[in-house]
This record gives sequence, C-alpha cells and structure tokens, in this order.
Amino acid sequence: MIVVMKAGAGEPEVNAVLDRIEEMGLQAHLSRGEQRTVVGVIGRKPDGLADRLMAMDGVERVVPILQPYKLASREFRPESSRVRVGAVEIGGPEIVVIAGPCSVESLEQLLETAQAVGEAGAALLRGGAFKPRTSPYAFQGLAEQGLKLLAQTRAQTGLGVVTEVLSPAEVELVAAHADMLQVGARNMQNFPLLREVGRSRRPVLLKRGLSATIEEWLMAAEYVMSEGNHQVVLCERGIRTFETATRNTLDLSAVPVVKERSHLPVVVDPSHGTGYWSLVAPMALAAVAAGADGLLVEVHPRPDQALSDGPQSLKPDRFAQMMEGVRAVARSVGRSVATAPGRGSGAEQRAFGA
Amino acid sequence: MIVVMKAGAGEPEVNAVLDRIEEMGLQAHLSRGEQRTVVGVIGRKPDGLADRLMAMDGVERVVPILQPYKLASREFRPESSRVRVGAVEIGGPEIVVIAGPCSVESLEQLLETAQAVGEAGAALLRGGAFKPRTSPYAFQGLAEQGLKLLAQTRAQTGLGVVTEVLSPAEVELVAAHADMLQVGARNMQNFPLLREVGRSRRPVLLKRGLSATIEEWLMAAEYVMSEGNHQVVLCERGIRTFETATRNTLDLSAVPVVKERSHLPVVVDPSHGTGYWSLVAPMALAAVAAGADGLLVEVHPRPDQALSDGPQSLKPDRFAQMMEGVRAVARSVGRSVATAPGRGSGAEQRAFGA
Amino acid sequence: MIVVMKAGAGEPEVNAVLDRIEEMGLQAHLSRGEQRTVVGVIGRKPDGLADRLMAMDGVERVVPILQPYKLASREFRPESSRVRVGAVEIGGPEIVVIAGPCSVESLEQLLETAQAVGEAGAALLRGGAFKPRTSPYAFQGLAEQGLKLLAQTRAQTGLGVVTEVLSPAEVELVAAHADMLQVGARNMQNFPLLREVGRSRRPVLLKRGLSATIEEWLMAAEYVMSEGNHQVVLCERGIRTFETATRNTLDLSAVPVVKERSHLPVVVDPSHGTGYWSLVAPMALAAVAAGADGLLVEVHPRPDQALSDGPQSLKPDRFAQMMEGVRAVARSVGRSVATAPGRGSGAEQRAFGA
Amino acid sequence: MIVVMKAGAGEPEVNAVLDRIEEMGLQAHLSRGEQRTVVGVIGRKPDGLADRLMAMDGVERVVPILQPYKLASREFRPESSRVRVGAVEIGGPEIVVIAGPCSVESLEQLLETAQAVGEAGAALLRGGAFKPRTSPYAFQGLAEQGLKLLAQTRAQTGLGVVTEVLSPAEVELVAAHADMLQVGARNMQNFPLLREVGRSRRPVLLKRGLSATIEEWLMAAEYVMSEGNHQVVLCERGIRTFETATRNTLDLSAVPVVKERSHLPVVVDPSHGTGYWSLVAPMALAAVAAGADGLLVEVHPRPDQALSDGPQSLKPDRFAQMMEGVRAVARSVGRSVATAPGRGSGAEQRAFGA
Repeated sequence: MIVVMKAGAGEPEVNAVLDRIEEMGLQAHLSRGEQRTVVGVIGRKPDGLADRLMAMDGVERVVPILQPYKLASREFRPESSRVRVGAVEIGGPEIVVIAGPCSVESLEQLLETAQAVGEAGAALLRGGAFKPRTSPYAFQGLAEQGLKLLAQTRAQTGLGVVTEVLSPAEVELVAAHADMLQVGARNMQNFPLLREVGRSRRPVLLKRGLSATIEEWLMAAEYVMSEGNHQVVLCERGIRTFETATRNTLDLSAVPVVKERSHLPVVVDPSHGTGYWSLVAPMALAAVAAGADGLLVEVHPRPDQALSDGPQSLKPDRFAQMMEGVRAVARSVGRSVATAPGRGSGAEQRAFGA
Repeated sequence: MIVVMKAGAGEPEVNAVLDRIEEMGLQAHLSRGEQRTVVGVIGRKPDGLADRLMAMDGVERVVPILQPYKLASREFRPESSRVRVGAVEIGGPEIVVIAGPCSVESLEQLLETAQAVGEAGAALLRGGAFKPRTSPYAFQGLAEQGLKLLAQTRAQTGLGVVTEVLSPAEVELVAAHADMLQVGARNMQNFPLLREVGRSRRPVLLKRGLSATIEEWLMAAEYVMSEGNHQVVLCERGIRTFETATRNTLDLSAVPVVKERSHLPVVVDPSHGTGYWSLVAPMALAAVAAGADGLLVEVHPRPDQALSDGPQSLKPDRFAQMMEGVRAVARSVGRSVATAPGRGSGAEQRAFGA
Repeated sequence: MIVVMKAGAGEPEVNAVLDRIEEMGLQAHLSRGEQRTVVGVIGRKPDGLADRLMAMDGVERVVPILQPYKLASREFRPESSRVRVGAVEIGGPEIVVIAGPCSVESLEQLLETAQAVGEAGAALLRGGAFKPRTSPYAFQGLAEQGLKLLAQTRAQTGLGVVTEVLSPAEVELVAAHADMLQVGARNMQNFPLLREVGRSRRPVLLKRGLSATIEEWLMAAEYVMSEGNHQVVLCERGIRTFETATRNTLDLSAVPVVKERSHLPVVVDPSHGTGYWSLVAPMALAAVAAGADGLLVEVHPRPDQALSDGPQSLKPDRFAQMMEGVRAVARSVGRSVATAPGRGSGAEQRAFGA
Repeated sequence: MIVVMKAGAGEPEVNAVLDRIEEMGLQAHLSRGEQRTVVGVIGRKPDGLADRLMAMDGVERVVPILQPYKLASREFRPESSRVRVGAVEIGGPEIVVIAGPCSVESLEQLLETAQAVGEAGAALLRGGAFKPRTSPYAFQGLAEQGLKLLAQTRAQTGLGVVTEVLSPAEVELVAAHADMLQVGARNMQNFPLLREVGRSRRPVLLKRGLSATIEEWLMAAEYVMSEGNHQVVLCERGIRTFETATRNTLDLSAVPVVKERSHLPVVVDPSHGTGYWSLVAPMALAAVAAGADGLLVEVHPRPDQALSDGPQSLKPDRFAQMMEGVRAVARSVGRSVATAPGRGSGAEQRAFGA
C-alpha cells in the first residue's frame, strides 16, 4: 500500500502519517519524489487502514500495491527513477553505454580499452576484478589489484567505473574503488550480498539471474532497496533456454515489462545475452529501440588473447561502428547517447594511448 | 556441397556439371542468382568429388556446406533472397508489415481492419480462416467461408492475403484464395504439411515452433525447399521458456543468427511473441532495429470482442501510432517501409469504410 | 459440468437428462462407468442449470469441472480407464511394456526384435513405418511396406502392433494394419490429425509434445475424445529444457500429475526421454515406481546399424536384463508385468528366430 | 589427467610422481582409494607428459580426463565415494532419508517432527535456520537461535543435523552446530561460499541450481573439492522449465547421469522438486528406483501453519506411509534403508513426544 501526499503537504502532515503507520506495527518507507511525496506501507494491513489514512490531513490518495515488490514498483513511484553514477545519469532521456573488458588483465589493456570506448562514446567503464568462473581452475580475476587498476584508469580517463562484487565481505572494498557495484546473474538471489550492497551508498547494477522471472528480479531489487539503497539499475543479460545457437536468449521483452511494472532504469547486456560478437551490434540496436536506458558491452583490444569471454567481445573499431548505429536508433526513438562529462583531457589520453 | 560457376559460364558448362552430379547418384539443385549460378549437391559424396568437379569447365570453386540444411544455407546462396507476395517483396531494403485480425470473423470486421491497417502502412493482410486452437470447444475459424472473405477483402482493398493452412489436404484450397501460405508454430515439424506446401507455387510464411531450435527451423524450411518451393519467409514468434510475464519469449537474436546462416528473409511476430498489446510496439521497433525484414501484427477494431487473441491485438489507432515508430527506426537503420502498390483506389476504400 | 446419476438410475432418467441438456443448446456426453453413469455437459452454462439438473429424477449430484478438459478429466470419470490393445489392457494392475525398433527396416530385423522382446516380456511391439525426421534427406521410413511387415510380424509372433501415423489422410491405412495408432510428440497439436484418429476405432497412444504443458497434453487428448474415441493412452517422452546431458528431460512428475487430473492411462518412453541407452533401464524402473501404467522402449538387435535412434536403443540382452528390474520394481509397488496372451507358438517363433 | 599407481606402489614411488608433477608447474591431487592410489594432475599439460609419467616406477597407467571437473569425475576415482554424516554413511548400499521441516520454527515443532521422522525411518534431520527467501519481507529464519534448536534436537533424538548456510561469513558458525552443511540451489554458483565450505571439515550437501546443467553442478562440486573437502553429496531438487503444474521439474535422469560421470553420492529432494505434497511419495519411490543414494523430504506436523513451504510438506503419518513404499522399492533394487544408529533412547524420545 502507498500513501500519496497532496502537492502542498508539509513536514507535519507527512510525519503524522509515518507515526500512524508505525504505531500499527507496520513499516513506513518515505520517498520524496519530484512532484509528490509518497509513503510506502509494508506489513500485514488491518482492515480499514486505507480509510483511516485517507482521513488524515495532507493525504491525497491511498493506493494498494498488489505486487510483492513495493519500493521497486511503478505504483510506489509513478515517475521513472534516475540513478546517478559519477557524472552520468541512467534512466533519463540519454542512453548510457557502459563498455570495457570482461576481466581487468593489466593497466595497459584497461587504459587502451577505456580510451577507445570513451572516444567512441561510452560513458562508463566496465571491467571485472573479482570474476565468478564456472571452473575453479580458470582465471579468477586480479582481485584488489584489479580494483586499483580500475581506479587508476578512471583517474586518467575520467570514465566512472562499474565492477562486480561477489561476496558481502568484499562490498566495502569494492565500493571504495568503484562508482557502481555490479551484482552478477549468478548472485541475483544471493540475499546476504543483496542486503550488503543495500547498506552501501554506491549505486547497484543488478543483473537478472539465468533463470529468474521478472518478478523474482524485481524482488531482488526490493532486497537492495529495503535496506535503504534506492539507486538500483536493472540489467537484462539473457536467460537460459533450450536454444544453443546463442549462449543465452536475450529477453528484450523484459525491457517494456520492467518499464510497466517498475520505476527503475533498465539496461541491456547484448554481449552475455548472445555470446557472439557478431550478434552484439544488432541486439544493442534492438535494445535501444525496445526502450532500454543503456547498454553494457564487452570490448577488448585483442579478443583472441582475452583471459575470459573473448568470443563475445567487440574490437574497439567494431564498437565504434556499433555506436554509430546506437546513436541513429536512439535519435529515432527520441533519445540521445550520453557522453562522459568528466573524461580526462586529450593530452592525458594521448599519454596512455596504444 | 555447392558448385559455384564462373561469372561467364554458359548453359553447356552448367549442364555438364548437373549431369556429372546425377551420374553419381546424387541430387543436383540449380540456383541462378543475380551474380552467380550455383549448383547444390545433396547426398553422400564420394571421396575426390570436389576435385573432379573443380576440374570441369566453367567451375569457379567448390564449397562444402557443413550445416544439415543445404538449400536454406547462406553458403548455398550468398546473396539474400527476396520473396514476392502479390505486389510486395519481402527480403529487400523495404520492411514489409503484415497486419490484420487473428481470426476472420465477418466481412465487416475484416474490411474495417484491412482498410485501417492499409491506411496506416501495412502492405499485406493477415487473418486466420483455419484456426489451430488448444481446446476442441473453442472457435475453430470460418474455414472455406473465411478464405472467401479474405479474397473478397483483397479485391476491395488491394492488400495481398496471408493465411494459415493446417493440413496437407487443405493446401490446394487455401492456395486458391491466399497470396501466401502460413505454416503455424504448432505445425513447424508437421512434415507432410511442409512437403505439401513445398509442392505449391505459393510463397510460404514458416513460423518457428514453440520449442524449435534455429537449426530445426531451418531444417523445416529445407523440407519446403527440397520439394522445389524456394519462396520461404521465416517468422520468429517467440519460444517457450519459464518466464510467465509474457506469453512467449520473443527471441530477437534469432534474426541476426538466421541472417548469418541463411539467405531467407525473416520477419517477426511481436503479437504472439509477447501476448500483450502494450508490449507489441516496443518489440516491433526492436525487431526492425535487429534487422528483421518485416513484421506480423495482430490488429482488431474491437479487441475485447475478438473471438481469439484479443489481449494481444492492437486497436487500429495504436497500430497507426506503432507504424510511425516503425518508419522512424527503419530509417535509422537505412531502410524504409513498403507500401502496398496494388491497393484499391480511395473511392473503393470509402465505399467499404467503417 | 458433469451430472452423476444415482446407482439405480435407469434409461428413462438418463435420457431425460440428455434431452434437457440438448434442449438448452449444450452438448451432452454419456459415459457409462462400472459403478456410475455420468453425463458430461459441454458449452456455456446458463445460471441455475446445476439446480435444474439436480432436481431431476435419478440425478445424484452435479459437479462443476473447472479444467478446460472435460472428457479427459478425473472428475468426469472418477475410476481409472483401461484401454484394450489387442489382447492386452493398459491402465489396469499390470504394467504393459511396448518394445521394438525405432524404424521398421526389414522383416528380418523386425521379427528378430519382436521375438526377443516378446520372450523377455514385452506385451506389444512398436516400430515406425512413417517416420517424422528432422531432415528431409534422412531415412523417412518404409511407409505402407513397413505397415505390412508389422502386420506380418504380428501374425507370426502374436504381439499387437503400435505404430505412428503422421497425417490425417493416412489414418485409415495405418488403422487397417496396426492395433494402436501413435501420435508423435511433434504432432501433439496437429489438430486435424487428432480429430481424424478420434474418428478411428483404434486406441491411440498420444505422446506429449516437446514443449507441451500437461494441460495442453490433456487438451490434445480431449480433441481425440471429443470425436468419440475414448481409448487414449498418454505417453510421457521427455520435454525440452536447457540440459544437454540428455536428449530431453524425462518429466516423471507428469505421471502422478496426470493420475490426479485424468482417468486416462499413462506410459513412459525412457528411450526418447533420455536419448542414451545406458539411462533407459534406470528411468524405466523409476517410471514404474512413479506409477506409470507401461513403458515404451526402443530395442534393436544391432543399434550401431540402426537407420534411426541407434544411440538410445537397447540390445535384446540388455532389454531382457531391464525387464528383470521392471518386474522387481512392479512387485514392490503392488503390480505385475503383463504378458502377451496371444503370442504365436514356439514353433512359429523358432522358424523366424535369429 | 590422472596417474593410476600400481597396486603395490609404495610411498617413494608416489612421492616421486608428485614431485615430478609439481616440478612442471602443475598441481597434483593425491587420492588414496581402497584398491588403488591415484594422482590427479591439474593445469596445462606439456606434450609428452603422459609418456614421461608412464615411464616412472610404480605407475600402472595414465588416463586423460576429458571433463572439466577432475576430482569429481568418475575417472579420477573409479569406485563410488561414501560420505559419512554423523553415524550415517551416504553412498553405500543403504538409502539415507533426510527429513524435517523447511524452517526451524520452535523447539516443540522441531522435536515433534524429529521424533516422528526418526521413528518412521529417517536417518538424518533437516531444518533451515538461515532461509533464502524470495521476498525481503518474508520470514528469514531463526538464524543462530535456529542452529541451537537443531543441536538441542540432535542431543535428544540422536539424529544428525543438515542445515543450510547462506554466506561465507557464517560457515564457521553453522559448522559448529550442524553435521552437514547444505548449499542451496540459489547459491550453487556462489563461488566464495563454495570455497569456504571447501575449507570446512563438514560434509556438504550441494543442491543443483535451478537452471544449472549437470556439468555446472559437478563444477560446483569441484570448487568445494579443490579446497580439500571431498565429502560432497549432490542433491537433485528440480530444474526450471516451462511446466507450471509442478513448482520445478524434477530431473531424475540426473541421477544415472551423475552416477556415470562422477563418484559422488547423489540424493533427491522430491519436495522442492514437485512443490506439492501429493507428488512427493511417487517421486521419492521413483528416485530410489532410478538409483539415488538418499532422499531429502520436507515434513511438518501442521503444514497449514508452516512459516514456509507448507504446500509441499508431508504430515508425519503420510511420511511414515511413504517410508513403507521407499523400503519396498529399495529392496526391489537390492538396497535397504539406513536407520540412525545413534538415535536417543526411547525414554528420551517419550519425554519430548507430542
């Protein structure tokens, strides 16, 4: 249930509503939107609650929320949320492209990639320092050393950094170096991890689980939000089906479904979603046409030497070509592509170029 | 295996190749492309065959085809195929939109819909006369009467007609009234039906089965083509997954995958693919951005009264709105939207308008 | 809705109920069970219908049927159905094992297999004459010649014959030679075929579609039954999932689910369900323990030379070994294994033995 | 690659092999089996390695292991492993039944259930103290208090305790109270958690992920084993498919597949696998017939009041009835059902009985 306050309602009216809710043993969640203040009520509601709240000063209307997710639901917050990552905003009119290598391998590899994707129009840099690998004998990432290389690359290129965190104990460390914390598909229902990133101040990129329904995905977002961190961006990255021509089946319908049910921004990862570099550009364009707020794309200067995910990584020149298409499709649906306002100067970039 | 003839190869050289192949107990399929003549060889090849064919006059090169589909493969025919349906061509630079009701219910309903979708930019009319329904107690379609209404509507609106055929015995009847034969998802591996439409002269719209891999789908096309009918258009319409927020999971990645592997045109059905009208427009736009050659969209003047598939049918005004978006996205990827050149005059249209 | 008649209700009371239902424009389906006569009512029921029927003489109670399948539902017929195939009954206390080659290849192969499986305890012979093959270039079966070999083998071994029918036009031909008509997984929603086998007098083995829900499967049975043929046996043969270690995922839970919802017998095909011969025996035993009424098992004297499905075919000695296990598990759940009462004499068998 | 030592090979020969492997920068894993000593070699092998190892004293043969899992593979350890949990052994001739409530709710509920399942023949007690729930607003378990109740119940009933651990930081705490650590389906690829339970001395019950292939599942076991803990029991609990009649699709084929590929014991959870109590008994029997080494079953004295998973929980009397069937089927496949040798005396049990 949500309580929508009148446009002119002041502190005392809002506080009275909060108090009333808590008196009844329920939880109240306050959300001050741009146009309206909204209070979410969580817990088992007694009969007649809606009427009693409606009768209070400053209350415009009381809306039941049928979905099991509350804070993540569109009913809770009718306007779309925007999530700020460094100098960039995800969920507004601009498409945000996050690009970079699957794994951080070396400073040289990272800088070369960052500069290439930044020049081509990416607004944020991705790169994995802690890698969740199917085999214990595969490359597991550079860990803290990788985080430092990411931070160093941000300092030199101005691109904000998105990187994955694998366990609750590492959230603080990753948050100290990264601008956005990624929760990977395999951890979408790692509830202790969701709670811990919910206690962090960093925005969260929450990937959909390989076999998660959209409802379960929004419930995972609710875990993060229920701890106080409302800066959640959802990322569709393909689901597991019987089809073997692609690594996963990219479920682009999830984009308009999420937009109907939730106010949270949603981006699409066509690299994991397809598993083959030649399919990345068409699906990136399709994602933008479907209404996605951004893209997450793997780029590597030498995919054949990549320590992970080479087959699905674009070379920088193909990424630049893809960005041309992304800009054209974005314009056709009334949007544009965000640029990284804080990128380092050309001089700095030249100093570290390939 | 395919034999690519030299640009200047004449009849005698080609015939010699055909003869040699058949002497060896193999099947030869001749395909005269715009730039090259190509001969497909089907059957178990003896060792040394490629060398012997290479040595013949007029042969440029011999290419093995690894895929189990031959005639449908991109290797067999490097340039993309175009399939003509009435006055419209599918697979060329223009996006072809096929729209209309799920079921033909009455002349009035059909004409009203046909005129509305024609005005909004559809190039072909869809409508089911024989309906495959999950329940034997549900509306099964108007059968032959429905075919006549479709033909009558074509006469009055100029829109070519696409309709489903359910059994081999009905292929001739349906082909007598329709411009294109649709093979539905549930019949994608109804092999006697595939063979029978393969013997027809009508172009075929072959929907992907609910749980068919892309390879099986191309094998189904191969069944049609192996009977001599090469006019096959593939239609992605969603696959069955665990997700319940949509009726099916529209697998848009299938579009670029098919484009890589096959020369056949591919269109997308966002109505069945999603199951909800509010998701149709975003997924239609996404399909065009992903490279689809056309769309198949359900439109009904009064979806709440539709005898089938109401929830996923667009009203005419929403369809017209969607077409605006389709045109914009098509332009952004260097394409345009086909119009029906043979549509009846405005006067005819007025005579039957709502 | 079903009308359950009192134990002692006579013809006049039953006829009055049938008349009343038809007067209202509804369809009545009469089912005379062992303990009760039951009338099914199909169509959109007017308000108050149940009360009016309840008030009639001889009516014990009126039960709404919520499922979309009526004749196939357990509510329609509370006791389990038994389907007679030749001299064998499926659905009673005895487990019926149907075994034989995937494809009929020659009289010798068929007879050798039939004698081996009959001696090991199979009660019916399976063998495909019309084969649904993914590729148009693969072996398509011996067609009518195969049917004749099946009939000849029955004459010599006494084993009743189960074989697949692919198209409505061939139902009569197949029914003339076979004891039971198999509708394959790819045809589970081939509605014209379902209707045609529904008009036949032969019992039907209805395989579950590769991606069919249990509800859709029962609706397919309803298609057959609604045409008057109530002799339907369901066959679980694996569904399509993401798992690649097996050809399909054998959904044994479908057995108890079907038993709850329907009165129809259900058998299990562990050969197609797993795709590998080494998995067939464990899953056959599991099927019996789960409550299946029978098994459908592929056996071939020389699997490495089989024209189809070699990897999943058991050799006769391994089949005999499996049957030992089947008998033991059947006993442990209070059942036994049916034998073919009409099998040919030993002399006949010797004449054609290996 | 594995190096199988001769039956009579002594310490010096084995050590020489270990040294040679490590000199080459590879990892060696020593496994002293009942009949043979085996050394696993992990890492990228130089050409000629097998020949060089074959030439060493005491080496019988060198076998390449093709699977990506090494320590978990059947090739690594040809005989089946047995895992001891308290006084019970999983993987031997006896079927081990683990039963109890989904969540620990109170001492009374736990003791009542434990005594009922122990009397009916369960050998181990299950019960969740840390609960992974889809919603942050649902009951999350009694946490440490729940662990204490489990330990207290073990003291009074003699049943060893299996309980889930959700995060690496809690492994030590859970291991201090439980006899076996359960890693849940949602955590099957929570790699930091797998590593941490791999460093524990407790046996591990590793559930298959909702959309994990069997190969990925064995790779998850490999994560645990590669840290030195070889006491891993796999648990099939249903995979996610399109079917909605059951909560999940119990993939019983996984049992014989795992038995072929791995030496690890495998048990089956028919409660989560089906989601409905009425399906639990048939699938439990099927699991035993398929070759499972044990069962994991949810039992609750009052399922309608359960704080989680009520619909799939058996009442104690139905569980006792199921156990009759389990014993009968176990006998039919040459096995028996383990009893808990260390159960408390009748006097203790009476003191806490219902």
